[in-house]
Amino acid sequence: GYSQLPRSVHGLDGAPEWPAIRAMLPELKGKRVVDLGCGFGWFARWASGQGAAQVLALDLSEQMIARAKASTQAANIDYQIADLEQLSLPAGAFDFAYSSLAFHYIEDFGKLAATIHQSLAPGAQFVFTIEHPVYMAPSQPGWTASADGRRIWPLDGYSIEGPRRTDWLAKGVLKYHRTIGTTLNVLIHAGFNVRHVQEWAPTADQVAANPGLAEELDRPMMLLVAAQR
Amino acid sequence: GYSQLPRSVHGLDGAPEWPAIRAMLPELKGKRVVDLGCGFGWFARWASGQGAAQVLALDLSEQMIARAKASTQAANIDYQIADLEQLSLPAGAFDFAYSSLAFHYIEDFGKLAATIHQSLAPGAQFVFTIEHPVYMAPSQPGWTASADGRRIWPLDGYSIEGPRRTDWLAKGVLKYHRTIGTTLNVLIHAGFNVRHVQEWAPTADQVAANPGLAEELDRPMMLLVAAQR
Repeated sequence: GYSQLPRSVHGLDGAPEWPAIRAMLPELKGKRVVDLGCGFGWFARWASGQGAAQVLALDLSEQMIARAKASTQAANIDYQIADLEQLSLPAGAFDFAYSSLAFHYIEDFGKLAATIHQSLAPGAQFVFTIEHPVYMAPSQPGWTASADGRRIWPLDGYSIEGPRRTDWLAKGVLKYHRTIGTTLNVLIHAGFNVRHVQEWAPTADQVAANPGLAEELDRPMMLLVAAQR
Repeated sequence: GYSQLPRSVHGLDGAPEWPAIRAMLPELKGKRVVDLGCGFGWFARWASGQGAAQVLALDLSEQMIARAKASTQAANIDYQIADLEQLSLPAGAFDFAYSSLAFHYIEDFGKLAATIHQSLAPGAQFVFTIEHPVYMAPSQPGWTASADGRRIWPLDGYSIEGPRRTDWLAKGVLKYHRTIGTTLNVLIHAGFNVRHVQEWAPTADQVAANPGLAEELDRPMMLLVAAQR
């Protein structure tokens, strides 16, 4: 399950997209940070270590929050159980919002984007990652082979937004497929300026160190977005 | 060839994405418009008909410009042969820039985006369409069937940007594959604000009227972008 994933065991360095995310982050020193879907708290602790003034770290899972608290010494991280679908946050309370691989579980992203926008100070940045819609869309989301034996990603249903169920980690996990266009338009409609969009792919160095990552060049698995209030 | 395509014969109404593009367009009355890759001039004439003050309509193809001129009565459309790779445009000379399905033939999109940006008045809009990178990326870009007989789009090579050759219309036509992220980041880097991103798909009404369009729901064929200087 989740706790055995490399990114759960090794933290940020277990996530191959972390160097790309880090390059998109603003300076965090002195910033008030909110982490939406904090899991075991790896990013919250990293932000605290970077000199963030305070970090509000939210997750739906009681067990994750308990483990995050047990793994944390920093006094300026406030872990709270929260449902992002029903979130409310104080106005102008944060200088940076972050979320890793959580928003594709959210049905009403428009409501959440508006909540985040009003919680940020003017000019504040917002960086998040989600599962890439090309990865999530297919009715059978797994590698297959073409007639001539090439590895292909069997895309279908890309423009049909809405629920997708998979048996990853747990049976019948419910995710919500949205096109890249929809995700960006929701941000723009909420008042954000889109600053950077990256369909994550491994670097040549990463593929050399871990040849299994080569398949990520064939279809994008994650979408990284930086926006600004 | 190109001249037999529905959009070449029937103009804008022969292009199923036209209603979606039209919904993204600003009011053109009194505007100075540049059309990059004007083909037979259908959009240039439409813009003139909408009250645009003047339209500069550019295309690489001498034959297309000749036919565009022959099809046009409006005196405020200036057709010119131009290579978008080597384009220069006067500064602040336009209030709206448009391009339909041309930029994916351009190798250096960054240079072109900078040229367009400086040619626009502050606040001016820029709407363009390109072939969607999911459509362009694959080594074998055609529908295939999965083992269980579903129609699938065999995606591979998505993150490998660069030239793609196809035999559409003419043998060995050279296109340039860029991810959505790269296209948007180029715009942002050039100084544009991204205003709307649409991975075009047919509406339910369009599919009802033309059932063949249903396959466009399985993988996006075109990307529509609105940006603002």
